[in-house]
Amino acid sequence: MSFGDGIKIVLVEPAGERNIGSIARVMKNMGLTALVLVNPQCDPFSEEARLMAVHGADVLQGAMVVGSLPEGLRDCQRAIATTARPRGIPTKLETPREALPWLWEKNINSALIFGPEDRGLSNQELSYAQRFICIPSNPEYPSLNLAQAVGVCAYELYQHFHNQQSPPTNQEEDTELASLEVLEGYYQHLESVLLKINYLYPHTAPAKMEKFRRLINRAHLQPQEVAMLRGILRQAEWAIAQNREK
Amino acid sequence: MSFGDGIKIVLVEPAGERNIGSIARVMKNMGLTALVLVNPQCDPFSEEARLMAVHGADVLQGAMVVGSLPEGLRDCQRAIATTARPRGIPTKLETPREALPWLWEKNINSALIFGPEDRGLSNQELSYAQRFICIPSNPEYPSLNLAQAVGVCAYELYQHFHNQQSPPTNQEEDTELASLEVLEGYYQHLESVLLKINYLYPHTAPAKMEKFRRLINRAHLQPQEVAMLRGILRQAEWAIAQNREK
Repeated sequence: MSFGDGIKIVLVEPAGERNIGSIARVMKNMGLTALVLVNPQCDPFSEEARLMAVHGADVLQGAMVVGSLPEGLRDCQRAIATTARPRGIPTKLETPREALPWLWEKNINSALIFGPEDRGLSNQELSYAQRFICIPSNPEYPSLNLAQAVGVCAYELYQHFHNQQSPPTNQEEDTELASLEVLEGYYQHLESVLLKINYLYPHTAPAKMEKFRRLINRAHLQPQEVAMLRGILRQAEWAIAQNREK
Repeated sequence: MSFGDGIKIVLVEPAGERNIGSIARVMKNMGLTALVLVNPQCDPFSEEARLMAVHGADVLQGAMVVGSLPEGLRDCQRAIATTARPRGIPTKLETPREALPWLWEKNINSALIFGPEDRGLSNQELSYAQRFICIPSNPEYPSLNLAQAVGVCAYELYQHFHNQQSPPTNQEEDTELASLEVLEGYYQHLESVLLKINYLYPHTAPAKMEKFRRLINRAHLQPQEVAMLRGILRQAEWAIAQNREK
């Protein structure tokens, strides 16, 4: 899939080695490969960072380190900046779900920019972007960990990609359902056993069986599940007969 | 907002102190407050954990530590389990976006269950849930860090909450669901009867019961339906004993 190369994750002055490692991991999880580090305030290739990246180590290793934000955005046509809260930005703040799909377009290079852990993006840094997103969160404590913020955005991008490229296959369709005939066979069998053990009496049977049918129908049984339930009935009949013979 | 109290985040045997702290933080970010730790493999209240929780320290401090998954689910009516990939689960795997809104309903306690960092939830653990989600991710490296997985789900829940603002009232007004504790009582009873009639043997019981739990969980039983099913079991026990006496 040529999804991840066209969208860069740009971290401005990240200070946490573990955060950078975690970000490489979640980028790999979500099919993103291009990581740009603007003037990092720590060693992004440290042991700590690599440990957190796990199988995203190649994303970390391939990260591009640059001295300034414009340098990091050089070949991009579109950029979205993230911000923790409205701070007098004259443009509209959008949600990731609304805005992020815009980054993903053929023959377009684009960037998603995140600020430093402690201060977020400055107004000057924000001004390099064309659109702005804020991750919806609890007003009492809106500030997400940087790696979590990248995770949520990468997840939203992947969701969008995933839903476009290949609509989710309906797994229910792969699950073969028992035919009504097979189900009917089970209900008949069940009724006869319930009559045998005096749980049902001929005059109560129809009403009780209706409840039972409704319950079982809700479970959308597969053929092998009906076979299992009938196995239980046969075994119960056997247990009763065994004791009868003794 | 009374959003976060009704939905528990349940971590089974978490082993990373930092992960637990990060999870407390992102829960707070997304308005969730109830954290349950099942048999944690580390000190969840360590300095490391508290440092990562930052302003989510109250969520961490309020975490309930329990010895087993059923204990953690005792007062819940609904549970969703997370799984990294299909592993022969005969039920439908859903995305967080599809399934998570189901956890949030007035007067319903619900749980979202996550497995240990290294192995995920076992089939036995999965069988306590009624629905199953898998976070869509890159097939080349689908395994998310535990805190990131919780983050994505908490974010989806908050998004849903944010877009709705008031929890949906139960549309099937009369439909009260059986608590997981009541269901558990039924499963135990069923297992003992199936052993008695030689349908189950001690060595096959866990695997077979797992299939049965999954089947029954899909039916979303009401308390009176569980009572009906237990009535059948009692009557079967009676029928076997009756014949024995003859």
